[in-house]
Amino acid sequence: MSFELDIQRALDQKTKPPGSLGRLEALAADLARIQRTLTPTVSRPHVVLFAADHGISSKNVSAYPREVTAQMVANFARGGAAICVLARAAGAGLEVIDVGVDADTSTLPGVVQDKLRQGSGDLSDCAALSTVELEHALKAGERAYQRARAIGCDLLALGEMGIGNTTVAAALLSALLHEPALKTTGAGSGVAGRALRHKREIISGALKRTATANHTPKELLGELGGSEIAALVGLILAAREGAIPLLVDGFIVTVAALCACRIDPAARRTLIFAHRSHERGHKLALQALAAEPLLDWQMRLGEASGAALAIPLCRAAACVLSEMATFASAAVSDRHA
Amino acid sequence: MSFELDIQRALDQKTKPPGSLGRLEALAADLARIQRTLTPTVSRPHVVLFAADHGISSKNVSAYPREVTAQMVANFARGGAAICVLARAAGAGLEVIDVGVDADTSTLPGVVQDKLRQGSGDLSDCAALSTVELEHALKAGERAYQRARAIGCDLLALGEMGIGNTTVAAALLSALLHEPALKTTGAGSGVAGRALRHKREIISGALKRTATANHTPKELLGELGGSEIAALVGLILAAREGAIPLLVDGFIVTVAALCACRIDPAARRTLIFAHRSHERGHKLALQALAAEPLLDWQMRLGEASGAALAIPLCRAAACVLSEMATFASAAVSDRHA
Repeated sequence: MSFELDIQRALDQKTKPPGSLGRLEALAADLARIQRTLTPTVSRPHVVLFAADHGISSKNVSAYPREVTAQMVANFARGGAAICVLARAAGAGLEVIDVGVDADTSTLPGVVQDKLRQGSGDLSDCAALSTVELEHALKAGERAYQRARAIGCDLLALGEMGIGNTTVAAALLSALLHEPALKTTGAGSGVAGRALRHKREIISGALKRTATANHTPKELLGELGGSEIAALVGLILAAREGAIPLLVDGFIVTVAALCACRIDPAARRTLIFAHRSHERGHKLALQALAAEPLLDWQMRLGEASGAALAIPLCRAAACVLSEMATFASAAVSDRHA
Repeated sequence: MSFELDIQRALDQKTKPPGSLGRLEALAADLARIQRTLTPTVSRPHVVLFAADHGISSKNVSAYPREVTAQMVANFARGGAAICVLARAAGAGLEVIDVGVDADTSTLPGVVQDKLRQGSGDLSDCAALSTVELEHALKAGERAYQRARAIGCDLLALGEMGIGNTTVAAALLSALLHEPALKTTGAGSGVAGRALRHKREIISGALKRTATANHTPKELLGELGGSEIAALVGLILAAREGAIPLLVDGFIVTVAALCACRIDPAARRTLIFAHRSHERGHKLALQALAAEPLLDWQMRLGEASGAALAIPLCRAAACVLSEMATFASAAVSDRHA
């Protein structure tokens, strides 16, 4: 609590009316708290993006065909995707990790290989991930965290790619919160009408299948979640004692964050929520985490695009604490008594 | 209209579901429209900040003493103020222009000298600016615009500093919109209770004085506005035919923008609104301009701080149009027919 007071005092000594930078001051305080310093930095921001395919994508739950996952991984490797452009604009590094893409991505430059299997089980019929596959994906997330730490990363933005993964995330969210598919399932990459009803029926079916057992959050992750979501959970859990703030992207990463926090509530400490996605279920997931995102821009792309957009906002917040003059140092008169 | 369609087509060919970057796509379209190109850039962002004092600041309308204007200009020159830190973090240049500070700032490194007079008339008694002073301040704004153009600026963030200038801006806003002081006058740098009532009475008195004549918007600017607000109006008018997007900061710059648009509605074309200020009157000013700001972070500092924070968001938006691959160039499958 005394460190909280130190942060507030440091902010109030800066040459500005107290509180006049609003949310930017609150963000600066969050960074100070997570990095455990009164002079937080965003000098080495980094984006990690886990990609995987899903058994369920054979059931027409997405507006795009399954092969788009691998095609987009190639697009990431060539630097043409939204996240490549946004990470560059933010001065951030980008690491793409194949944790289960249904194609050989090993010849693509820079794509980290960390998969046991291509794709996953079809969650409407069986567990998406076996126990071994789940443990591997969780460890893949932990390995990505350790690599980011090793290069001195001081802000880590989290993202994902996987055709069908809003279906997976909605199912997991429904199971974690005991909410029906209707409340967690949205358009994803663009399904509507009949296709959206079909997507909801698939999810309702999977929920019926898993409701028969009294699963732990981790077991639900194996039953419903894909490898990229499990890797995100593994990363978030690995980061929980550390000093690297994690920037949570939209719907899918938020569901992973919720799952991590249900496994261990201590995982909430390092999380900063970048944006409020346009995807239907995001609101529920954010509420469950008592999260108030930085941006509300109706984005719904994934790939860490919203998280990357928030990196410069975090950099600005860190600089307020680390670089602004104080009333004393600048010889500026403070307010009337 | 055909260029509008070209912009939309360019955005829809990028490797992402159509519209999935939400507000970021709308911002990219705004930049394309203003810069008149399908490949907008934010390579040379620049902040201009006009500083001046006000006759009215002798009447206890601010939480801070009048000398803080000059002290803050010195703080700008030394790089310790919020805007210095935020401009640096955004990779933007910063030009501070003294258009009426009540002190000699000519020895401060980098502070552009462009003033006829120190301070201004007390708007509760007389016109704040004479006709000659008003014309000089408008031209000072135009000169700042031409300097920014000369260095190849492709995004210009606008700011101000001047103890007492929320009083000035609230009076001008009230006069332009025919709204009472109660609706336009807020806490500024931090007045409340009795001090806030006093501030409102001062403004109501000034409005009574100016209501006797049927003033044009430009005449109201001379009667009520200070030099930094007039310089902002001059800059915005000078930019109206050009290709440099202007990032409008909070309450005071928005009132200047409204005044410019009342003088010539064509001035609206180049304006992008950075943030929704916590200052009371901002909402009315934004409504009158049909403006929807990018950020809602309860900021109320001025100095272009909110505008500077929005620079990286504009850079990200420009890069979406200029750097992202298309479905064709990346050989990514488009959505199901």
